Amino acid sequence: MPTLPPAHPGALRATPTLPKRRLRAHAGPAAAPRLPGPPRRGSPAPRPPVTGPVAPVLAAPCRFSACPKKWPSARPCWGSPSPRGCSQLTADHPWSKMMVSCDQAQLMANLVKLIKAKKVIEIGVFTGYNTLNMALVLPDNGRVIACDINEDYVKIGKPLWKEAGVEHKIDLRIKPAIQTLDELLASGEAESFDFAFIDADKESCNEYYEKCLRLIKKGGIIAIDNVLWGGKVLKPRKDDLATQSIHHLNEKLLRDARVNISMLPMGDGVTLAFKL
Amino acid sequence: MPTLPPAHPGALRATPTLPKRRLRAHAGPAAAPRLPGPPRRGSPAPRPPVTGPVAPVLAAPCRFSACPKKWPSARPCWGSPSPRGCSQLTADHPWSKMMVSCDQAQLMANLVKLIKAKKVIEIGVFTGYNTLNMALVLPDNGRVIACDINEDYVKIGKPLWKEAGVEHKIDLRIKPAIQTLDELLASGEAESFDFAFIDADKESCNEYYEKCLRLIKKGGIIAIDNVLWGGKVLKPRKDDLATQSIHHLNEKLLRDARVNISMLPMGDGVTLAFKL
Repeated sequence: MPTLPPAHPGALRATPTLPKRRLRAHAGPAAAPRLPGPPRRGSPAPRPPVTGPVAPVLAAPCRFSACPKKWPSARPCWGSPSPRGCSQLTADHPWSKMMVSCDQAQLMANLVKLIKAKKVIEIGVFTGYNTLNMALVLPDNGRVIACDINEDYVKIGKPLWKEAGVEHKIDLRIKPAIQTLDELLASGEAESFDFAFIDADKESCNEYYEKCLRLIKKGGIIAIDNVLWGGKVLKPRKDDLATQSIHHLNEKLLRDARVNISMLPMGDGVTLAFKL
Repeated sequence: MPTLPPAHPGALRATPTLPKRRLRAHAGPAAAPRLPGPPRRGSPAPRPPVTGPVAPVLAAPCRFSACPKKWPSARPCWGSPSPRGCSQLTADHPWSKMMVSCDQAQLMANLVKLIKAKKVIEIGVFTGYNTLNMALVLPDNGRVIACDINEDYVKIGKPLWKEAGVEHKIDLRIKPAIQTLDELLASGEAESFDFAFIDADKESCNEYYEKCLRLIKKGGIIAIDNVLWGGKVLKPRKDDLATQSIHHLNEKLLRDARVNISMLPMGDGVTLAFKL
């Protein structure tokens, strides 16, 4: 439970004032959508309006049941039109809950941008929402190695990669992810990646982590999804290999001197491991 | 509520195996404390054991009521001995709930280290737990401008700044924070800071944010604490200036094209604003 601190006197200014004009301006029932502001000098030209398959999807209210915000259509999920469209296209899929939540995707993009990442690994693509989300903040010569074995799911969101103009940044590898990671290591790409996102079969999460740790540079980040696993990690059943595996990795990360960690209680829990 | 995704088939390897030996090794009831591992080449010499006032405090179980983890003594709050000691010394203070949670402090240190910050602003020092926590990960020529008006609280934790060997990195300014920020701007320090942590009187949070945004470099981070304010931000009372002020800043940040944001549901809510 969040605690409610008392008013903090620590840095109180002599005569606190409230920006009343601005408060009134924001007190209406529906806030305006985020505006991009005037173009900055040297910034890229604004993208043309979206006219592809995502356009009608974006006009409808958010249908994605796992979205914690249940945005009405005026305030859709985070992201530029294409990732939002991808999340909406995923909504009717029977496994739509597997998609990362929009606040997680937002944080991943912010971190990828923060560290000026060029090379990213994604283990578990599903319909490609987070793949697209990360590709959009990479530089034009950036690359996401996107690992999955199921191309049927990827096909749901893949058209939006092209529509968003980032298809050239995504290197989709349809084969077991362990095999792809081994190939990257064999081709001399150890310590060359900036960021990895692990969100696939939980039984292999330790192997994914260990191989990603070799592929990531010092100062890079590995994000591991579903570290709470709906709370099951608190008391894993002996016959539940997936939960055992996540629990084991959580315990190991707590003592792993190769990384610093932060376990964030967003979505189903995501741990950030910062490689030392 | 976190959602429990089904087993992800996306990147399933052909024959998933569980690292059974490791699982058994970690299955005991009490996990060993995190070990630092062998010294690395070029790494600084290990610190000598703590012998100052914090030593007996660290031997006792965690007494900090706001600690979400309630660690027993074998697994104390996050941080090296001195910040842990500082959090314990704060436990008996009537306003101990004002201290940042240990998982928040952990994330702040990880971010400061991640972006290789040299210059940090802290608005609201209280007993100096997070000040110390951030100073420890700054380089030796790094600096925290620590703003507060109440030196009595600072005195509780300040001895540990010296004990931890980071006192020279902390520039404590006992005066209204707005005044300190204005002085920094007047002395030509705009766009020279890497990180700011805002956790003071909520009525002024918008002014703190605006001034910090001028002081922070592009690519820097402003972290704003208590953005959930115990849930009160959902329906601020008209006579509650503190809640109105946080609510206003939350709404403004949602549309602020000068930053990207991530609102994290840890502690009482912390928003990270990444300056563009």
